[in-house]
Amino acid sequence: MSAQFKEVSGSIVAPKGYLAAGVFCDIKRLGTGKGSNKGQKADLALIVSEMPAAAAGMFTTNQVCAAPVKVCREHLRRGGVAQAIVANSGNANACTGQQGLEDARAMAREVAARFHTPVEHVLPASTGRIGVRLPMQQVKSGIRMAAELLGNEPSHADEAAIAIMTSDTRPKQIAVEFSLSGKKARLGGICKGAGMIQPGMSPTGTRPASQPLHATMLCFLTTDAAIEPPALQTALTEAVAKSFNRITVDGDMSTNDTVLILANGLAGNPTLRQADARRNTKDFKIFQSALDYVTLELAKMIVRDGEGVSRFVTVRVNGAKSPADAEAAARAVANSALVKTSWNGGDPNWGRIMDALGYSPATVVEEKVDIAYSAPGSKKLIYSVRRGQPASTPFKTLCSAVAGREFDLHINLNLGRGSATIYTCDLTEAYVDFNKGDVSNPSALGG
Amino acid sequence: MSAQFKEVSGSIVAPKGYLAAGVFCDIKRLGTGKGSNKGQKADLALIVSEMPAAAAGMFTTNQVCAAPVKVCREHLRRGGVAQAIVANSGNANACTGQQGLEDARAMAREVAARFHTPVEHVLPASTGRIGVRLPMQQVKSGIRMAAELLGNEPSHADEAAIAIMTSDTRPKQIAVEFSLSGKKARLGGICKGAGMIQPGMSPTGTRPASQPLHATMLCFLTTDAAIEPPALQTALTEAVAKSFNRITVDGDMSTNDTVLILANGLAGNPTLRQADARRNTKDFKIFQSALDYVTLELAKMIVRDGEGVSRFVTVRVNGAKSPADAEAAARAVANSALVKTSWNGGDPNWGRIMDALGYSPATVVEEKVDIAYSAPGSKKLIYSVRRGQPASTPFKTLCSAVAGREFDLHINLNLGRGSATIYTCDLTEAYVDFNKGDVSNPSALGG
Repeated sequence: MSAQFKEVSGSIVAPKGYLAAGVFCDIKRLGTGKGSNKGQKADLALIVSEMPAAAAGMFTTNQVCAAPVKVCREHLRRGGVAQAIVANSGNANACTGQQGLEDARAMAREVAARFHTPVEHVLPASTGRIGVRLPMQQVKSGIRMAAELLGNEPSHADEAAIAIMTSDTRPKQIAVEFSLSGKKARLGGICKGAGMIQPGMSPTGTRPASQPLHATMLCFLTTDAAIEPPALQTALTEAVAKSFNRITVDGDMSTNDTVLILANGLAGNPTLRQADARRNTKDFKIFQSALDYVTLELAKMIVRDGEGVSRFVTVRVNGAKSPADAEAAARAVANSALVKTSWNGGDPNWGRIMDALGYSPATVVEEKVDIAYSAPGSKKLIYSVRRGQPASTPFKTLCSAVAGREFDLHINLNLGRGSATIYTCDLTEAYVDFNKGDVSNPSALGG
Repeated sequence: MSAQFKEVSGSIVAPKGYLAAGVFCDIKRLGTGKGSNKGQKADLALIVSEMPAAAAGMFTTNQVCAAPVKVCREHLRRGGVAQAIVANSGNANACTGQQGLEDARAMAREVAARFHTPVEHVLPASTGRIGVRLPMQQVKSGIRMAAELLGNEPSHADEAAIAIMTSDTRPKQIAVEFSLSGKKARLGGICKGAGMIQPGMSPTGTRPASQPLHATMLCFLTTDAAIEPPALQTALTEAVAKSFNRITVDGDMSTNDTVLILANGLAGNPTLRQADARRNTKDFKIFQSALDYVTLELAKMIVRDGEGVSRFVTVRVNGAKSPADAEAAARAVANSALVKTSWNGGDPNWGRIMDALGYSPATVVEEKVDIAYSAPGSKKLIYSVRRGQPASTPFKTLCSAVAGREFDLHINLNLGRGSATIYTCDLTEAYVDFNKGDVSNPSALGG
């Protein structure tokens, strides 16, 4: 972590002027039908700023995109101001047609009415099963309950972080504190992931020039820094490009991927503007690096808690002909079923890595490829391949290099200066078992 | 099957003038080191035509490509004539540098010397572990043994088909008989597959315009039809495009994918020439349809016997904006980890299919998509999605539609006339277990 900021507790309620809550309103339909709430798990989160805030978002580039994503985009186009985020788990509100759009708008409207704010100032999000109508009665009762329970204690942030979980095994949250022109500011976030994880988000849903990518991941960020909406979008686009758009669990990009940020200005710093972003002023740099840190830490939490994951691998490609080539090569390796299963077994199988590099869209010259491992973040490399040929490293040493729960894979194509990093994981029997579903219990089938 | 041809036994020795053998020469290193051959499994196959034959090939487009692939391409460039195919399993001779090339050439030379044919008339192939030098002493003794055991009984073809197996659970072979201008001709083939299966082959190794694809699959075809090399290459390119280049087990394209065909002309039909291919004469059509049938049946056998496979699914996309879009959409669905695991569970999860379509490079309009199932080859469709929305089919009916070992998935994008078919399978815990390897036994680790 940079000396420019330090971690603090409270995630989304760490910055001034934010309230949060998470409640169970049976969107997940966990009840046994006999009025029991056995297995109850929160499924609706509400985040509210005490005053209207600058807002920005990044959304899935999947052409099949959920209703709340469409509604968020619409709302953000009206000037980039918002005051509340409402999110449910258990139902994606995707492939639900016109009814789905109406439901997402009604969800926003319910919150807007409670807080006497325009409906456009409420940003809705959903995750869960695809193709099932949102149970609006539950959603509305959940919003009413959450509005009553809002608070700014770390426990309130915990509840919100828990309420957006689907197959996640633990809540994911973080906050940092930094200084902008002498004013103390904070930035916090919560997120969820687990499966259908290879986000490729853009502000408008238009695909970026890089490869089309693929989870439902949701991330909600709050800050009390003062920053205008265009500068906030610039910072968020940059941060997501280096974090959530750099992870893959299973290579499947979700219909619902959403990152939202609210910036209410209560820190009282001189407002950051687009000109600061362009000139990369000292304050903007500090804000950007705080946002980069928070989004990258949250993105890594998603991979570490991916469905069935036993190993976390950072794939670092250097020496590609171009940055796009580097990314394509890293993604081919990170998404290869054979490479991922070998990691599961703790097998330093470089043949499968060479194979994946060779079929990737990147230019690869077999005789130039170097492959090495290291401890996370370490520069001490253990080579398995040098110039396309097995290195002299003993097999046992290579096995040790991939035996830990986390390691870095270094690939040098030795063809140019393009580089890219992708954060990924192994493919396990637990992933398959989890996702093969239980057709005897259709309501439990994931999206 | 067309009325124009019928299946016959004997696969690669069914056509006149071919001899085959399969032997164990310990390339797989199964011995316990105490001189025992416990677990012996044949690992070298030899196929010889009694006279020089027209020859053609299709090879992996992986940029990391095995030495025997390079040598085959070199040999075929010299006029498209060959007399023998020699193939080993247990070692891919890939990522073996200059030594690998020398070994592949020495393998061909050993066969050439035995049969007094130029080395260019011998086509070598390998499959197995990547990055390990071929044990040339074993290869040479295997070739000597195989040359002694050559014969034209179905049992000889069986032995060759068994000798090229790696993780395959059963040999794969077929032959058909047809008539060309009144002359009886035959075409037979053997193949192997199992993992690292999404071939994308071309005659030269140059990538086709379609997506870059990914197994080691080997296929060796023999025919006694008389056909000139360019016409034979035309027919093979066409047949592979509709068969082996249409399958995917795990989305990984191998370094070694190879299809070879020999045509020795002993059927005595009027020789088929490139002009016949261009004009699509009656005889050429019959030959093409026989070749199409043999390659498609062999390709399907590879998918059905893929590592850990429990279900075989034919993904049929229609109504795409273009054939390339149709293929891209079909491949996204066929390679989605989430779709494949849902098939494993017998779960008719259409949300994951919609999701994969949406992130595919194909143009997709959610509100236009239809999704249905049928029994293999049947036109009786059971709809799960109509125009982007859940169809009214009862959930139990949908479960029955995907409960069998084989079914067809029909996707209509309703945007144009592009169509494509991809043959694929589910993703199972057995696949993961098989491929996670056993690091305590490095010699057993696959390529």
